[in-house]
Amino acid sequence: MKEAKYDVVGIGNAIVDIIARCDEAFLSNHGMEKGFMQLIDASQADVLYEGMGSATEQSGGSVANSCAGIASFGGKCGFIGRVAVDQFGKVFAHDIRAIGVDYDTPASDVGLPTARCLVLVTDDGERTMNTFLGASTELVESDIDAKLIASAQVTYLEGYLFDRPEAKAAFHQAAKLAREAGGKVALSLSDAFCVDRHREDFLALVRGGVDILFANETEITSLYEMNNFDDAAGAVRAEAEIAVLTRSEEGAVIISGNETIQVPAVRVEKVVDATGAGDLYAAGFLYGLTSGKPLEVCGKLGALAASEIISHIGARPEADLKKLASAKGLLE
Amino acid sequence: MKEAKYDVVGIGNAIVDIIARCDEAFLSNHGMEKGFMQLIDASQADVLYEGMGSATEQSGGSVANSCAGIASFGGKCGFIGRVAVDQFGKVFAHDIRAIGVDYDTPASDVGLPTARCLVLVTDDGERTMNTFLGASTELVESDIDAKLIASAQVTYLEGYLFDRPEAKAAFHQAAKLAREAGGKVALSLSDAFCVDRHREDFLALVRGGVDILFANETEITSLYEMNNFDDAAGAVRAEAEIAVLTRSEEGAVIISGNETIQVPAVRVEKVVDATGAGDLYAAGFLYGLTSGKPLEVCGKLGALAASEIISHIGARPEADLKKLASAKGLLE
Repeated sequence: MKEAKYDVVGIGNAIVDIIARCDEAFLSNHGMEKGFMQLIDASQADVLYEGMGSATEQSGGSVANSCAGIASFGGKCGFIGRVAVDQFGKVFAHDIRAIGVDYDTPASDVGLPTARCLVLVTDDGERTMNTFLGASTELVESDIDAKLIASAQVTYLEGYLFDRPEAKAAFHQAAKLAREAGGKVALSLSDAFCVDRHREDFLALVRGGVDILFANETEITSLYEMNNFDDAAGAVRAEAEIAVLTRSEEGAVIISGNETIQVPAVRVEKVVDATGAGDLYAAGFLYGLTSGKPLEVCGKLGALAASEIISHIGARPEADLKKLASAKGLLE
Repeated sequence: MKEAKYDVVGIGNAIVDIIARCDEAFLSNHGMEKGFMQLIDASQADVLYEGMGSATEQSGGSVANSCAGIASFGGKCGFIGRVAVDQFGKVFAHDIRAIGVDYDTPASDVGLPTARCLVLVTDDGERTMNTFLGASTELVESDIDAKLIASAQVTYLEGYLFDRPEAKAAFHQAAKLAREAGGKVALSLSDAFCVDRHREDFLALVRGGVDILFANETEITSLYEMNNFDDAAGAVRAEAEIAVLTRSEEGAVIISGNETIQVPAVRVEKVVDATGAGDLYAAGFLYGLTSGKPLEVCGKLGALAASEIISHIGARPEADLKKLASAKGLLE
C-alpha cells in the first residue's frame, strides 16, 4: 500500500449508544428482530426509551467504533461524521478524540439532535439496535475533506450511510477521491436488512470499486440472495479484491483471489454484549492490513479485537489493543 | 416505624456520572485528592473532560443511587432533585424511573445544564470525583413536596446538598416536615472535605434531629476532628439514634444506644470501581430498616449491595438486589 499520513479514514454515522438489558419478550413485544438494526424516528425513540430499563451511555457508530479500535492498536485514523451541538455530540467528539482519532467534522447548530442508538442486550449477549439518525443525516458533501481522504491508505465506508439518500453522494465522492489518490476503498455491509434495502447499490459498488469488503454471514447471503454461505463466498470471490466474511463463533473466512484463509474466533468465557463485534473485527483487520501484515495475521488481529469487545458492555475497547496483540505475539 | 406509602424519600443532587479510567499521575497532575470529591465550575469541567480518556455515562448522585438501590431491593422510593431540560436530564429521569423510583421534580428550562460528575477510576478501583452541580443548584423550597415527605417512613438527605447555600433551606424544611409527620430523618455525610466545609451545620443537625447517620471512617473522624475511629464512634454514640459507620473492606460498625454491631464486608474478587459503595450500603441498610429487620440484617443487606456495586463500573445496581439478598437468605 501507499505511504500515507493516515492508515484509515472512516466515514460513518456519529452515534451515542444507549444500552440496556432486556428479555426476549421485550423484543417481540416491540416488534424487533433480534440481532438486527432498525431505523426509528424521534417519537419512536421516545416511546421505546420510556419502556426500556436503566441504561448506560457510550459512544458508538459502526465505522467510528472501528476507527477507535484501529487507534487502540496504535494506528493513525481520521473520522468523518456529523453530530449536533448538544451533550451527546460532546460525548461522541470527546470519546473518539480521546482514543486518538482525528475528528473535525463541524457540529450542526441547527436541526436534529445527535444520533442515538437504543441498544437492547439479551441474556445471550446478542444486541438488537434501534437507531435514530438525527444529526448524522446532516452530513453533506462539503464535509468530505478531500485532503484527509487523499492522505489515507484506506477510506472505510459504513453501509448504514446508504440509509440516508443525502449521504450517498458524499459516499460516492469519497470513494472517487480515495481511488484518485491511489488509496483503497473498504466497505462494511453493516446489516442484512440494510443490504436488503440497498442491494443494487451495494452490488454496483462491490463490482465497481470496493477493494475490501466486510460482511457477516447474513449480510453476504442477503447481498447475493443465496441461501448458502459457501455459494455467497464463491460469488464474492469473483468481485472483490479482498472479502472478509465473519461468522461469529465459527470465526472468519478471508477470500482474496484464489486464496481462502480460515481464521478461528478467539474464545471468550462469556459473551456479555455482542455490540461492536463486527466493527472491531474490521478494526483489527484494517490495522493489520495497513501495517503490512499477511492476511492471516490481519484476520487474527480482527478476531482478537472482536473477543475483547464482546467481553464487556459497549462497542469501544476497554483494553489497550496494542498491548493485547503484542502479548499474543501478533505484533513484533 | 410508621406505616407509610413510601419506605424512603431521598433528596439529593441529580447527576449524570461521566466515568473514565486514569493513572495516579493524572490525579496528581490535576490537583485531585484520590478518593474524594471536589466541586468544579463549568470551565474547569470542560478542561478536565478534555484531558480525560474515553468515558461511559451513567446516572449517579449519591442519594439518587441509594434510592435506585432501595427500589432494586423492592422498596418503595421517591426522589427529589433537579435536572435541566437537556439530554443528561432525560437520562437521569429515565434511569431513576426505570428502576421504579417515583421522580417528579420539574426540569429547569432556563439556567444551568444538568449536573455532571467527572469520575476518575484508578487501577485499584478507587474513584475520585469532580462535580459540576449545574441545574442541581436550582432546587428550591417549593420542590420539597410536603405530601411526599409526609408519606415516607424515612426522609434521606444528602450531605453534598450543603455545598449549595440555596438548598440548605430546602434541606431544613424537609427535615422539619418529616419529623412533624412522624417520620425518621437520615443523613449521609457524603465526603470528608464536605464535612470539613460544613462541620458546624452537620454537628447541629446530628445533635438536633437526625435519626440515622451514615458516614465512612474519614467522614466521622472529620466531623468530630478526632484522629481515631474509636473515639469518633464513641462521640457519635451519644448524639445519633443510629450511626452506620462504614470502613471499606473492614466492614461496618452500627452504633445504637448501648449496642455496637460489627458487620463484615462481603468480599469481592476484584474492586472494579468503588463509585457508589457508600450509597449502596445506605440503600441496603435503609431497605432493611424500613422492612423491620434487625440492625445486623440491615448491615448485611448494606454490605451485600455495596459488594455488587463495586464489582462493576458505575454506581447503579446491575443485578436485582432483591434476588441477590434472597439467595443469601437475608430476606424471607
